[in-house]
Amino acid sequence: MADWNWKLVTETFLQLLESIRRRTNEALQKLPLSDSPVYLYAPVRYILEGEGKRLRPILVHLSGQAFDARPEDILNASLAVELLHNFTLVHDDIMDHDNIRHGQPTVHFKWDESTAILAGDGLYAIGQLCISKLKTGQLEAVRAFNQATLMVCEGQAYDKEFEENNRITLDHYFTMIEKKTGWLLGLCAELGAILGVKDELTRTHLRSYGLNLGKTFQIQDDLLEIFSDASMMGKSLGSDVLAGKQTVLTILSREYYPKEWAVFYQQARSLEMEETIQRLRTFFKDHGILEMAHKKANDYSLRAKENLSVIPESKRKPLIEFTDFIVNRKR
Amino acid sequence: MADWNWKLVTETFLQLLESIRRRTNEALQKLPLSDSPVYLYAPVRYILEGEGKRLRPILVHLSGQAFDARPEDILNASLAVELLHNFTLVHDDIMDHDNIRHGQPTVHFKWDESTAILAGDGLYAIGQLCISKLKTGQLEAVRAFNQATLMVCEGQAYDKEFEENNRITLDHYFTMIEKKTGWLLGLCAELGAILGVKDELTRTHLRSYGLNLGKTFQIQDDLLEIFSDASMMGKSLGSDVLAGKQTVLTILSREYYPKEWAVFYQQARSLEMEETIQRLRTFFKDHGILEMAHKKANDYSLRAKENLSVIPESKRKPLIEFTDFIVNRKR
Repeated sequence: MADWNWKLVTETFLQLLESIRRRTNEALQKLPLSDSPVYLYAPVRYILEGEGKRLRPILVHLSGQAFDARPEDILNASLAVELLHNFTLVHDDIMDHDNIRHGQPTVHFKWDESTAILAGDGLYAIGQLCISKLKTGQLEAVRAFNQATLMVCEGQAYDKEFEENNRITLDHYFTMIEKKTGWLLGLCAELGAILGVKDELTRTHLRSYGLNLGKTFQIQDDLLEIFSDASMMGKSLGSDVLAGKQTVLTILSREYYPKEWAVFYQQARSLEMEETIQRLRTFFKDHGILEMAHKKANDYSLRAKENLSVIPESKRKPLIEFTDFIVNRKR
Repeated sequence: MADWNWKLVTETFLQLLESIRRRTNEALQKLPLSDSPVYLYAPVRYILEGEGKRLRPILVHLSGQAFDARPEDILNASLAVELLHNFTLVHDDIMDHDNIRHGQPTVHFKWDESTAILAGDGLYAIGQLCISKLKTGQLEAVRAFNQATLMVCEGQAYDKEFEENNRITLDHYFTMIEKKTGWLLGLCAELGAILGVKDELTRTHLRSYGLNLGKTFQIQDDLLEIFSDASMMGKSLGSDVLAGKQTVLTILSREYYPKEWAVFYQQARSLEMEETIQRLRTFFKDHGILEMAHKKANDYSLRAKENLSVIPESKRKPLIEFTDFIVNRKR
């Protein structure tokens, strides 16, 4: 995990993340999938062999370990959320016409849209089969899993509905990203508490942790889309801004510098991609938008850490470190 | 239900079907769905208000009643399968470029593909939430539900994989339709036994009933696609044959009259639709293909009825009548 440009988090923690990531990948490879129909399972395997960061399975592990859940249940739940996540990515990539994901061609780009629709559906069904294998808290887990899925669908719907709409405010934005990004992380964190058979209050706190962390995560994503480099992100830069998507950077610019932003944005979109990205970077830096966004990301990470107070102090550290890890991620 | 051209089945049974259909529609309208995002819920509502035949919820009711399951569980399970069914229809219609379903424009045609992909995903998630509400047999039901979903995905994958492939045999065809059509009906029938807390053997018999009935159903579908009229089917005729899909009629023609069919099919596809349909009808009738297909549909319905022997005789009649109803359906 050498490409995680890293300062705050300890080497021991990074090794822990890497070991969970490796175990997740091994388990994904070992899923008992049929060989045929090739039309379904070739793209499914292709997706599962991709270079995902596996942050969601990692969060299930850290949360599950904090609540002394069974290792086997943690593994099955973590596979289920990773499959769910990949299902949403495959379908979102069709909807958003994204051609690169995790450094490789997206399914609809490599094959076609029909293949990608069906591969996404299949991933979700396989994820459901994983979550229904749990030995503890099955019903609560299944309900939380499906409630979160519906919220993610709602978030994606807002994302599409808000495209090219200049009246979208920061409040709308946070409603959208809480659903689109927050609920899945909330599910991961809550699953740990469900598998550890904790009470409703603890579960709610863990879900809130994920919802807040999700906001930090999505703000980071919006920033990285402009300020990282494409080879590290494994996808093209600037595509959201250029597709007229609402990002924290464009909304803050519109709210604080409405006239200047309108003129600038109109011009910037008509340029070559490289030039557009350069100009956007300069705009966001010079107008203090980047700093404001960083501050918001940081604020939500602090709220996330507060939600962790329901976990005994001796068990809390890995999740605190995970939060810092998200705040400081470079891809 | 005046448009079910009907002979064999009793008036009482038809009234029973109609009452289940009405209750299903009412319950679908009462699902606690949010109003926003409109992007997601407008198409979801549009689909649920469509003129579906509700055969799958009806089967869950008949099977559940045969095993004395709780009415509330039967209702929730029946809604879940109808939502699952509609999810697959919405996605299949995108993949197959079908523009009319149940007499109204399909979602991707009325809105666009992104809307339809997401509406399908949402329907599935809502279906999952219905199935996880059960009071009895929840875990078995959830597993059966998701296993069936994966099988339906496999069936649709075979359907796509087999397009325009002249080497597909009747065996391939039955593998495909067992998954694509049979497993969902198998799920409906098995759910009744699960909700009635019956043993593994009973469950397996009921699933087999649905798998066999599904073959009858799909053969009928292939026949109706050519021999019914479009207004009654609520969709355009001949589209499967013209899309190069494998149907029982085209495979039988190819197996029994390989050379004659190859020449005929090539010519027929180049004509106006009306003319093509007329010529196909004549070919299938004159060569005995229609009769062979009818016989196969009937054979599978007899096997289906045999599977019902695990149900006490006094409780078996509605499912026998349902089987006859499927065999004789006109749309």
